[in-house]
Amino acid sequence: MKEFELINHYFKGRGITRRDVAVGIGDDCAVVDIPENCQLAVTTDTLVEGVHFFPDIPARALGHRVLAVNLSDLAAMGAEPTWISIGLTLPAVDMTWLEEFTEGLHEIAEYYNVQLIGGDTTQGPLTITICAKGIVPKGKALTRSGANVGDWIYITGPVGDAALAIESRKRGITLNPDQVKRVTEKLHYPKPHVAAGQVLRGLATSCIDISDGLLADLQHIVDRSMVGAEVDINKVPISDDLRALDDENLREMLSLSYGDDYQLLFTVNDNNRSAVEARLVQYGVQAICIGQITNTAGTVELYKDGEKYSISEQAGYEHFN
Amino acid sequence: MKEFELINHYFKGRGITRRDVAVGIGDDCAVVDIPENCQLAVTTDTLVEGVHFFPDIPARALGHRVLAVNLSDLAAMGAEPTWISIGLTLPAVDMTWLEEFTEGLHEIAEYYNVQLIGGDTTQGPLTITICAKGIVPKGKALTRSGANVGDWIYITGPVGDAALAIESRKRGITLNPDQVKRVTEKLHYPKPHVAAGQVLRGLATSCIDISDGLLADLQHIVDRSMVGAEVDINKVPISDDLRALDDENLREMLSLSYGDDYQLLFTVNDNNRSAVEARLVQYGVQAICIGQITNTAGTVELYKDGEKYSISEQAGYEHFN
Repeated sequence: MKEFELINHYFKGRGITRRDVAVGIGDDCAVVDIPENCQLAVTTDTLVEGVHFFPDIPARALGHRVLAVNLSDLAAMGAEPTWISIGLTLPAVDMTWLEEFTEGLHEIAEYYNVQLIGGDTTQGPLTITICAKGIVPKGKALTRSGANVGDWIYITGPVGDAALAIESRKRGITLNPDQVKRVTEKLHYPKPHVAAGQVLRGLATSCIDISDGLLADLQHIVDRSMVGAEVDINKVPISDDLRALDDENLREMLSLSYGDDYQLLFTVNDNNRSAVEARLVQYGVQAICIGQITNTAGTVELYKDGEKYSISEQAGYEHFN
Repeated sequence: MKEFELINHYFKGRGITRRDVAVGIGDDCAVVDIPENCQLAVTTDTLVEGVHFFPDIPARALGHRVLAVNLSDLAAMGAEPTWISIGLTLPAVDMTWLEEFTEGLHEIAEYYNVQLIGGDTTQGPLTITICAKGIVPKGKALTRSGANVGDWIYITGPVGDAALAIESRKRGITLNPDQVKRVTEKLHYPKPHVAAGQVLRGLATSCIDISDGLLADLQHIVDRSMVGAEVDINKVPISDDLRALDDENLREMLSLSYGDDYQLLFTVNDNNRSAVEARLVQYGVQAICIGQITNTAGTVELYKDGEKYSISEQAGYEHFN
């Protein structure tokens, strides 16, 4: 399997070079510098073929997506992404596929100034694990546990388009070519809210990225913060493409119980609302207030057209088989 | 796939708790403190069923082994291991298997004072990626590139026993039950030289852990340091179990061209020889000098019984299919 070792060399010397990397790819470990008064933030996400992506996903999109989902976790902590390691398991060495995969990976890595500092390439069923590292000023990380009663609940943008890309394919829902193109782009090339996450440090009281679905992830905040929440689902932003879907139940399921858009969901106390909105607009993010934190511990209540509402619970996770 | 999410919770709250972990498992990222004047060392290793281990490996051994191979890389940099993240892909949820796997993982993690700070558990073919982190005093990491002409080449202990465990099984070589037990223990429960690696900081000029085979890994030092090396293969330490093997060629292949023992291979200049030997003995490590760095750049020359010697090159890697 010398071929697979060669791939490690193939990754070396590509992509950006950060000045805080003392030892990069090619030794037993990478060695990096952490700035004074900063902490290290670490996240790990694995994508498995058939579980987290369709087998025919373009290699470039896969390279983008696997890093995007990790950067989104760093964004949700308010961390600045810095370095990544990759565990790449491939069924065979296909240089065309690898070229495209690394192009997708390096494009997004360069955009966010993230350096690949190591990894391991092995033979086996297609599985990719990225461990992404970032830095955050000491004590300033945004957690899920800081929401307080009365805080307002915000979202950084529309949800449900990536879900529409998946479900339209699985259910045979007819979309026009422009719609297919737009929603597939959202699924394949999610944009993690890295700048927004850092803006929210010191302003938001809690934050999470939406990967399991808006309601499931809000539930994580509610549980960890020991509070409740109410959400006006009329206010949850959705795209025109999703709005054009006739089936209202499906529309709500895709926007509320499905992940894959990687918006940030965060809470802000009343005093900071206008500051947060104004600062995010400077970064091109139109944050939308969708509800408020309540004292009904552990409970997320939905409202629609002014009345209490419930949707049928749907797991928003394992859709690619 | 809620079952797989539950596993993440299952890992939480087990194992040791380090004081430098500000946010552990259960948020979007872990957040940890790096001591002043230290750098972060990072390594990633993936183990795939059928490629890196026999499918019938005990789960506890697999949990031990996957962490050991990562800690060995940190040891080779002279780093102190601190935190790990795991990407665990499992074909199904088998709680007995998981109990044993985590027991093996936590045992070695506790022994080396390493905390599991996060990960991702997904469904798919059995694949495990660990990203291990450690700390090392600024500028003191041991690399592969510092060997100088005249330095002595050392190894921390015998090589070839793990290889014997694999090849005796594949080739039907008869070992007695005690031998089987001893060499299987070496394969399943390798002991990374974590303390020795830290002792070598400031004393060794280069260091690597033997994972690809003694000669292949010495070649890495030679290449990166732009020097040559000569090795007296009579001096390469092997166990009595390996010595009992009749086939001399096979014995040499197993000890020189096979990894999996995770000894450290390092170089020391003449002035530091006695200091290194004495300090390592305090940690129970009997370092053996097997050769010297030369100026024949890029070349590793072997000697046996006082004469130049060569062995047939054998890849020491993909043995488990």
